[in-house]
Amino acid sequence: MNNNTLIPEGLDHEISLRIEKIKEQLKVAGLDAVLVASNANIFYTSGRYFRGYVLVSQTQAPVYLIIKPVGMTGKDMYYIRKPEQIVEVLEQNGIECPARLGLEFDALSYSDISRLIKAFPQCETVNGSGVLRAARMVKTDYEIEQMKEDAAHQVAVYQKVPSLWKIGMTDVEFQIEIERVLRLEGALGYTRAFGPQMEINCGSLLAGNNADEPSPYEFALGGAGTSPSLPVGANGETIRPGETVMVDMSGAFNGYQSDLTRTWRVGDVTPLARKAHECSRAILRHIEEMARPGVKLADLYHAAIEIVTEHELNDYFMGHRQQVKFIGHGVGIDLNESPVITPSSKDTLKENMTIAIEPKFVIPGTGAVGVENTYVVRNNGLECITVFPEDLAEL
Amino acid sequence: MNNNTLIPEGLDHEISLRIEKIKEQLKVAGLDAVLVASNANIFYTSGRYFRGYVLVSQTQAPVYLIIKPVGMTGKDMYYIRKPEQIVEVLEQNGIECPARLGLEFDALSYSDISRLIKAFPQCETVNGSGVLRAARMVKTDYEIEQMKEDAAHQVAVYQKVPSLWKIGMTDVEFQIEIERVLRLEGALGYTRAFGPQMEINCGSLLAGNNADEPSPYEFALGGAGTSPSLPVGANGETIRPGETVMVDMSGAFNGYQSDLTRTWRVGDVTPLARKAHECSRAILRHIEEMARPGVKLADLYHAAIEIVTEHELNDYFMGHRQQVKFIGHGVGIDLNESPVITPSSKDTLKENMTIAIEPKFVIPGTGAVGVENTYVVRNNGLECITVFPEDLAEL
Repeated sequence: MNNNTLIPEGLDHEISLRIEKIKEQLKVAGLDAVLVASNANIFYTSGRYFRGYVLVSQTQAPVYLIIKPVGMTGKDMYYIRKPEQIVEVLEQNGIECPARLGLEFDALSYSDISRLIKAFPQCETVNGSGVLRAARMVKTDYEIEQMKEDAAHQVAVYQKVPSLWKIGMTDVEFQIEIERVLRLEGALGYTRAFGPQMEINCGSLLAGNNADEPSPYEFALGGAGTSPSLPVGANGETIRPGETVMVDMSGAFNGYQSDLTRTWRVGDVTPLARKAHECSRAILRHIEEMARPGVKLADLYHAAIEIVTEHELNDYFMGHRQQVKFIGHGVGIDLNESPVITPSSKDTLKENMTIAIEPKFVIPGTGAVGVENTYVVRNNGLECITVFPEDLAEL
Repeated sequence: MNNNTLIPEGLDHEISLRIEKIKEQLKVAGLDAVLVASNANIFYTSGRYFRGYVLVSQTQAPVYLIIKPVGMTGKDMYYIRKPEQIVEVLEQNGIECPARLGLEFDALSYSDISRLIKAFPQCETVNGSGVLRAARMVKTDYEIEQMKEDAAHQVAVYQKVPSLWKIGMTDVEFQIEIERVLRLEGALGYTRAFGPQMEINCGSLLAGNNADEPSPYEFALGGAGTSPSLPVGANGETIRPGETVMVDMSGAFNGYQSDLTRTWRVGDVTPLARKAHECSRAILRHIEEMARPGVKLADLYHAAIEIVTEHELNDYFMGHRQQVKFIGHGVGIDLNESPVITPSSKDTLKENMTIAIEPKFVIPGTGAVGVENTYVVRNNGLECITVFPEDLAEL
């Protein structure tokens, strides 16, 4: 890997496509420019993470302002020590300072944004997070290819999951062996996610009643975890016959992510658990039928609830002791992107959105069941990029 | 683990000690109260992570305002759906609203803080991050015990490191096997750290020339990583004879952390590398001699530089192509806490601070060398909690 070139080799055209998408959103939002600063958006606008800023404006080429690392080279690139130097650098290089500037209010700390506001004394500063969220919501072909590459790696690991199982394992022990194979397959071992409610390691494995433990985080399901400092996921209990094991582990290999959940069973499980698992699949089939550009996300949510109600499974849908009100979410650089499939969503599907749909159930005494796939929204419907058998297979 | 009790069993006294420490800092800062909201500080003030807030005031018992998870029980605890309800809940329960309120400006997003400021229309709101940072900087006996427990687990894993090595391994392959043993020992697999410059998985392993690759993050050393989206740490190259392998991997087991680095060599390394490794140890011995409550952190930094200069190793100290200007940092709930040992630090050592000291060198062609230990500042000097042989042992 050549570490010196700002835009990684072969990515110039791709980055210019992304910049155009941001410019369109700047126009919609009535902003002259947005100052990119969060890790995910630095990666989006340059193809790599560096410490610094990217100024994307409607009328000029993007400007890269780099604090760290040393030694990078590239076009429209300037080294700075601190944000207070940005305006000066722009002036010295004949770059117009924007009148109305978006800053990442949703991603940067109050202290960091306050400092930036002071560093742009001539600008009107407003929240620019929505501009970047909207641009990233619809993927480029390259981004979709990256996510397909992630999914291929993730599927290769999921194929090995049954071979990693040994009778008598705890959920944590089983998860560790899957983590190892994920990492050997190239998983980064770090899950980039937006916001403080998403602390996670290499993903989640939920077995038996632990799936019904409420968690403070904003994941679809919970789990007690092994420490009250990180109360989510596997809790260290032995997995027993009659229980299910839901694997929702890292698809993060190349800066993008795919999101894939499959559920296995240990021996036989109750008819209720089997019924709920089949209901999850029926929901996915139905959504695959109805979803296409222009369809309202809220309608997808309501369609799912209708199927759940027909099957009289409402008490178990998206959790049991604690339930959440979404059935899917955008995925890309962050595990959790826009849009979110909720009853109150105002968004509609757009071509080349990438969304994970995860109708899941928690059955007391058995565990979690259900399936999650990542899809690309195509002109004629959904393309599943996480193709892997969906049945409730025995471990 | 009982998930229902707000303050985990047996921790009531410990939490009250921490609350007292925050109250002292509120007095120093002239604040009536601080509204705790970041994950690390929720854990600090309750003994567990939940989604919500803790109002710590000078004159009243702490108030716990919980959004998620469902089903918790405890004293002075109220469920809310959103921060806009906090003032109402306080009024309804006869709790005085603070006149001068600290908010976590350094940890929460600009949008979240702006929302909180509006939710407290009667309060003067100021930055309360410093109050919490100062309280957490000096540990309780219980916190030190937790960190010693972390260190014992971490040492147990480091003892196994040589047995995990196989000739021909890449740095990533070696790291994955250490990760697995860390996780089996109980490591959470998630490294809580403050701020956006600290994205990391289970820690860092640096071998050979990759140690000299500059990284944008604020870790002591760098590494190219395997993806431009996460440019830090191991890069997937085969480890060769004549190279060093520096292991700086997770000490996060129980919500606290210890920070421990050891370096191994593959075959023989150059005299320069050996000399630099011994210099790191000499710096630690010298700092162990001089450090005690009241000593200025800047003086520790300057003392280290003096030893480095005597050995004519300045070009390699704390990096080579890119160097950093600190040699140590506080550690606790976050991997990176206050204080930081820099030339411009105004802090002095205080009893029961816990600090990681990491004089490291990068030798081109060989790799990183040096040692990092975590210490408790005691009345009569430093107590090392990461006791493990420091020599540059052969793998």
